[in-house]
Amino acid sequence: MRQAIVTLTTDFGLADHFVGAMKGVILSLAPKARIVDITHQVAPFAISEAAFVVAEAARWFPAGTVHMVVVDPGVGTPRRALVAEAGGHYFVAPDNGVLSLVLARGKPKVREITADRYFLHPVSRTFHGRDIFAPVAARLASGAAPSRFGVQISEYERGAFATPSSRGGRAWRGTVLKTDRFGNLITNFQAASIPEGRISVRVGRHSITRRVQTYAEGKPGELLLIAGSSGYLEVSVNQGSAAAMTGAAAGAEVNLTVGAKRSAGRCSPPGRPA
Amino acid sequence: MRQAIVTLTTDFGLADHFVGAMKGVILSLAPKARIVDITHQVAPFAISEAAFVVAEAARWFPAGTVHMVVVDPGVGTPRRALVAEAGGHYFVAPDNGVLSLVLARGKPKVREITADRYFLHPVSRTFHGRDIFAPVAARLASGAAPSRFGVQISEYERGAFATPSSRGGRAWRGTVLKTDRFGNLITNFQAASIPEGRISVRVGRHSITRRVQTYAEGKPGELLLIAGSSGYLEVSVNQGSAAAMTGAAAGAEVNLTVGAKRSAGRCSPPGRPA
Amino acid sequence: MRQAIVTLTTDFGLADHFVGAMKGVILSLAPKARIVDITHQVAPFAISEAAFVVAEAARWFPAGTVHMVVVDPGVGTPRRALVAEAGGHYFVAPDNGVLSLVLARGKPKVREITADRYFLHPVSRTFHGRDIFAPVAARLASGAAPSRFGVQISEYERGAFATPSSRGGRAWRGTVLKTDRFGNLITNFQAASIPEGRISVRVGRHSITRRVQTYAEGKPGELLLIAGSSGYLEVSVNQGSAAAMTGAAAGAEVNLTVGAKRSAGRCSPPGRPA
Repeated sequence: MRQAIVTLTTDFGLADHFVGAMKGVILSLAPKARIVDITHQVAPFAISEAAFVVAEAARWFPAGTVHMVVVDPGVGTPRRALVAEAGGHYFVAPDNGVLSLVLARGKPKVREITADRYFLHPVSRTFHGRDIFAPVAARLASGAAPSRFGVQISEYERGAFATPSSRGGRAWRGTVLKTDRFGNLITNFQAASIPEGRISVRVGRHSITRRVQTYAEGKPGELLLIAGSSGYLEVSVNQGSAAAMTGAAAGAEVNLTVGAKRSAGRCSPPGRPA
Repeated sequence: MRQAIVTLTTDFGLADHFVGAMKGVILSLAPKARIVDITHQVAPFAISEAAFVVAEAARWFPAGTVHMVVVDPGVGTPRRALVAEAGGHYFVAPDNGVLSLVLARGKPKVREITADRYFLHPVSRTFHGRDIFAPVAARLASGAAPSRFGVQISEYERGAFATPSSRGGRAWRGTVLKTDRFGNLITNFQAASIPEGRISVRVGRHSITRRVQTYAEGKPGELLLIAGSSGYLEVSVNQGSAAAMTGAAAGAEVNLTVGAKRSAGRCSPPGRPA
Repeated sequence: MRQAIVTLTTDFGLADHFVGAMKGVILSLAPKARIVDITHQVAPFAISEAAFVVAEAARWFPAGTVHMVVVDPGVGTPRRALVAEAGGHYFVAPDNGVLSLVLARGKPKVREITADRYFLHPVSRTFHGRDIFAPVAARLASGAAPSRFGVQISEYERGAFATPSSRGGRAWRGTVLKTDRFGNLITNFQAASIPEGRISVRVGRHSITRRVQTYAEGKPGELLLIAGSSGYLEVSVNQGSAAAMTGAAAGAEVNLTVGAKRSAGRCSPPGRPA
């Protein structure tokens, strides 16, 4: 039996029994699984935050890891449950967009989980993390093939936050995926796909043009544009919180304009690698 | 040597060295133990909260798991330390009621821990989690028999919160065991033991009669009665916090009246499975 | 391959992907490593807090454990990275004083990490926890010798907070290393090295002379001096928070005077075991 890793990303917090119950289910079904918490402090029901966190953490794990994501405002409604394969990893999650960033890469295989013989019965109406997602993740960790859980589907939720949209010309509309502990605004613009040269980013009433490589290049209190360690463009403040300064949070609109006002040339869409 | 699981439930928080020190002790004495955090965010000294969380999490773990519970306002006083066997699991905790819900099921065997040769010496006055409970839990995880730690006792703390009490007729007085992350009030009434039909629950100045199966059945802001995923009756609000609306917290009184005013019939006590 | 333990102490919090990414890197390079969180809730950039927490937790782990400490306000600047051996344990951290208390004991061997072939490339400017410290910790956990990472050095940061300084006569100036969850002020005075008899401790505008062995000896609201479970002198309040009462936090000055006003005799410096 392999000793697969199962990672957990939820909005359950750490003060209740929810996370412990899921771990108990996983270890009962897959005694050798190694459980790793990514976070349980996604803001309640914050799909884009969870999508960002799991995508950024998952890519550092070894192939074969099972990533379970339970941010599930639709629990109890007929929303589907998914098992997906992408980049050599497995993902188990509700079909609500929480896997959008993970599934945007490569050629993912996505299945709807329908094999209810693997669920814990009676399935509660409010805690599918324990009754559906944990047992499926545990079986995957024990070597079960994804095909055991349901048939492949081609349509599934792709969050609008996954890619910036063109506003025509050199302008794109993006969004804040997440604010981090330091108050940085992590946008959905891939930094590597933004051309060199002058850019302007508008968040709320703030317009930011200063591009730096380290926070220390900014004056204290100055809003900065920086390529974060995740590869996304971030709005930051040297020795301060960009979230506090701008009032922006996950979901806020971010407008990007590339190039000087009267210059020309084609730009690749900045939301995906050029 | 077996590779037993040791779970931890404490009110130590996550910002200090306390949890790390206990884990170091456990792994020094039981190198193959697998440590799983249930929670370290029980409100300081909140016995009923810890009792609820460990009971709800523990039952999903495989038989043989060792559950260590350190919510211990009496540390340094002569309160006893316990090792208990219940439902195929082991529990290590101070004798202050924190195991009340776990020990209410089946026929538990409870022992007072007196074998101080297993303690870390000198035993501090303020940190028995490290000096007494962790080494005992580690030895249990390594296969030591509970009888090594002390003799069986029949009297131990049973928290008043463990079972509702009859107020005569069709009325019972219960309590809030815990409020969860979503503001639900988890009562100590077993939902399955409450008869179908009209019931009325009073919390503070609020009287609630609406029984639903999913939160979405309620109007926004409406107080609801629902069978939670733990099996207890919960007071909830669709898209809101029942804790905030009612001002009730762990320990608050909850009064249940079963049946219509003039109907008759016998009711089993709703605090335990009928 | 050995199954070494890797502990983590950071100021990254638990709501972002940072900790998960580091764990993924470690498990990719050292599949059998056992990762244990000490804390990720060091106050941002609080060197003395991290130094205290890792020292107090580490000493309970088995020899051969790798302790990774990433509280790193200087990330991206030319501050050095260290791998150290002390007391049979390994430590990986930035050279900013965060290992001060660990390295004050015995005869540590400290090396500057320069072998960049072990880093993840491209090395980001903002996340050396993932790109430098995690891969080095993983290799150590897999049995790599510290000498693989760089040459031994004799000069490294020793935080001013590590030892109290003499103010002449019977007076010493110390500091608060950390406040804990219960509001206790943990000072850098070793309790065992303070002589019996009358002492006086001044914190802010408060002068404390009452020495007790348990909190319960104090009146509610009374400031007390107590030997904490870590061995340091703590300022505490029975049923209250000394941090709230005094307004003191990590870094606050603490002045100790030993002995009655007119008595004589030599005192060993209270900051280290006599």
